Amino acid sequence: MRAVRYHAARDVRVEDVPEPDGLRPHELLVRPRYCGICGTDLHEYVAGPIVTPVEPHPLTGAQNPQILGHEFAADVLEVGSSVVAARPGDRVAIMPLIFCGQCYFCLRGLNHLCTRMACVGLSWDWGGLGELAVVAEYQVAVLPDDLSYEQGALIEPAAVAEYGVQRGGVRPGDSVLVAGAGPIGALAVLAAQAAGAGAVYLSEPNAVRASAAEGLGATAILNPAETSVPEELFERTGGIGVDVAIECAGNPRALSDCLAATRRAGTVVQTGLHVGPAEVHPMLWSQNDLTIVGTWCYRVYDWQRIAALIQSGAFPVQRVITSRISMDATVADGIEALIDPSGSELKILVSVG
Amino acid sequence: MRAVRYHAARDVRVEDVPEPDGLRPHELLVRPRYCGICGTDLHEYVAGPIVTPVEPHPLTGAQNPQILGHEFAADVLEVGSSVVAARPGDRVAIMPLIFCGQCYFCLRGLNHLCTRMACVGLSWDWGGLGELAVVAEYQVAVLPDDLSYEQGALIEPAAVAEYGVQRGGVRPGDSVLVAGAGPIGALAVLAAQAAGAGAVYLSEPNAVRASAAEGLGATAILNPAETSVPEELFERTGGIGVDVAIECAGNPRALSDCLAATRRAGTVVQTGLHVGPAEVHPMLWSQNDLTIVGTWCYRVYDWQRIAALIQSGAFPVQRVITSRISMDATVADGIEALIDPSGSELKILVSVG
Repeated sequence: MRAVRYHAARDVRVEDVPEPDGLRPHELLVRPRYCGICGTDLHEYVAGPIVTPVEPHPLTGAQNPQILGHEFAADVLEVGSSVVAARPGDRVAIMPLIFCGQCYFCLRGLNHLCTRMACVGLSWDWGGLGELAVVAEYQVAVLPDDLSYEQGALIEPAAVAEYGVQRGGVRPGDSVLVAGAGPIGALAVLAAQAAGAGAVYLSEPNAVRASAAEGLGATAILNPAETSVPEELFERTGGIGVDVAIECAGNPRALSDCLAATRRAGTVVQTGLHVGPAEVHPMLWSQNDLTIVGTWCYRVYDWQRIAALIQSGAFPVQRVITSRISMDATVADGIEALIDPSGSELKILVSVG
Repeated sequence: MRAVRYHAARDVRVEDVPEPDGLRPHELLVRPRYCGICGTDLHEYVAGPIVTPVEPHPLTGAQNPQILGHEFAADVLEVGSSVVAARPGDRVAIMPLIFCGQCYFCLRGLNHLCTRMACVGLSWDWGGLGELAVVAEYQVAVLPDDLSYEQGALIEPAAVAEYGVQRGGVRPGDSVLVAGAGPIGALAVLAAQAAGAGAVYLSEPNAVRASAAEGLGATAILNPAETSVPEELFERTGGIGVDVAIECAGNPRALSDCLAATRRAGTVVQTGLHVGPAEVHPMLWSQNDLTIVGTWCYRVYDWQRIAALIQSGAFPVQRVITSRISMDATVADGIEALIDPSGSELKILVSVG
């Protein structure tokens, strides 16, 4: 079968690989249909291997070269003998995390913090960018008939954004700042709206990205290179500050803006990933009684709820799709387009099968 | 009457001042008995005026020279016509914050975040370091008979520490790191124990302070200049990290240790006040799904609960008292002793009357 495999930095190949051979009782054989390209894939491409395993992964045994793709929807082809959650012919979205179920964190329902975490498409023998994949029963959520494969493929990044909104405690009517209009920032705008936010402000210094975000329905798009975002938001909130700020840029300036723009007793959500250190002023979070929440992935049990939210129409995740490409074009039109700093792509979906 | 008044940096005088003249219906005239010296007083002395008002305070009209003292217990001498919370002869502890009751935050029960906040002993005509003081009815908590004036005077700093434990969500049996063995850190150790913490680790680089903290009953006192506190605590918690870390030092190293020593999905409490910036690694709070909570003062309604906790024996706040001095000695034996970096004082109480 054809698959997109990660070999090393700048070395991702679309090539023939062996097909899966047999299922364990709790496993399913699926045919991926649409698969998104994620920032994690880009980090592996530019600076990896980071999370793809150079040695056999302690939980799964997977090792590079690794089939990529962890944001996907698929058709179920076969199910193992004990599987009851889905049947052949079902359309499913995949929750890609793989956890031990036995560690300190798994025992407390915090499976996304498992100490031996693996992930389909990063540290498991199969991925969404292959014509076939094997996944576990707990990883499939059957899609309602009126959800498309494309929407199903977006549940994974949507879950990242929605977890930030959830951890931030956004209430109906709240004012929210989202810093950074990348794909997760764009989904965070939509997730905040889906949670009933009264106003969602988006800050983005890159004019191309800001322009691409215009269709999301943000209350205002602010340019932090031209405007003091905290000052602007204090003015727009009667001197109070926003209830919740969600940092989706992963850079110190965005974090600083989020901390400064949030009202006393408000919440700052760290959804973006910082690669280096950031200078902060802890006095700001002291004197404002702020809560800052880090977020890692999402709760592994949230797929059906997010599917229902998309189905209701309140969370139009498909708005972040900017291109659909073939599997053969994954590197040239997918990965390379996304790492181009002047590019306007948000979410690129690969049509796998 | 005699009072300790702040005039300017390094200019605090014990002098004769006019007595209060008349009470409004909701006010009480009290005679302070014991009053603590707080870090805020020291900041005013070294680098002020910071919070004492150079111009008339917008809420209270108070202006320097300012009678100091906001940690005190007192006898009630007279009460205004509408006061029902206390009677002449009652012994009371004072919650010193003064708030407008009308702003965005006051309306939401967040009076400690009032936009026009003032404070007895900092921005009100009276303070605990004067032979008489006027306070409002909402500021007095009648002391149970078996609580001493000294314990009553300690409720204010104890409330700061206890608010950190409360915001950190310390549960019975939890493991807790307290970083910094100053007076608030010492009270945080006691407050965590009072909340039922299973182990309370204290980190403190200053040998004199560490030695003074030995009587608090911490599980271990660690020296961050000699030991990696996160490594030591990971070893002591089976590789998991502490449930809650409370930063009471107000310095970047202590914050960094707290962030690194806390388990996934744990909580870091910012109780210490940082005067400058700190370099942090936000990836740490992302990948560990941490919650970081800033804390400002305390909830204004917590005095009776904390008095009850002290009364129960579970919160022996008096253990942090290292000296009792006369009002005349406030500067020489109080303020100067506390700002001496080689000093071993934790909490100094001034016997006012």
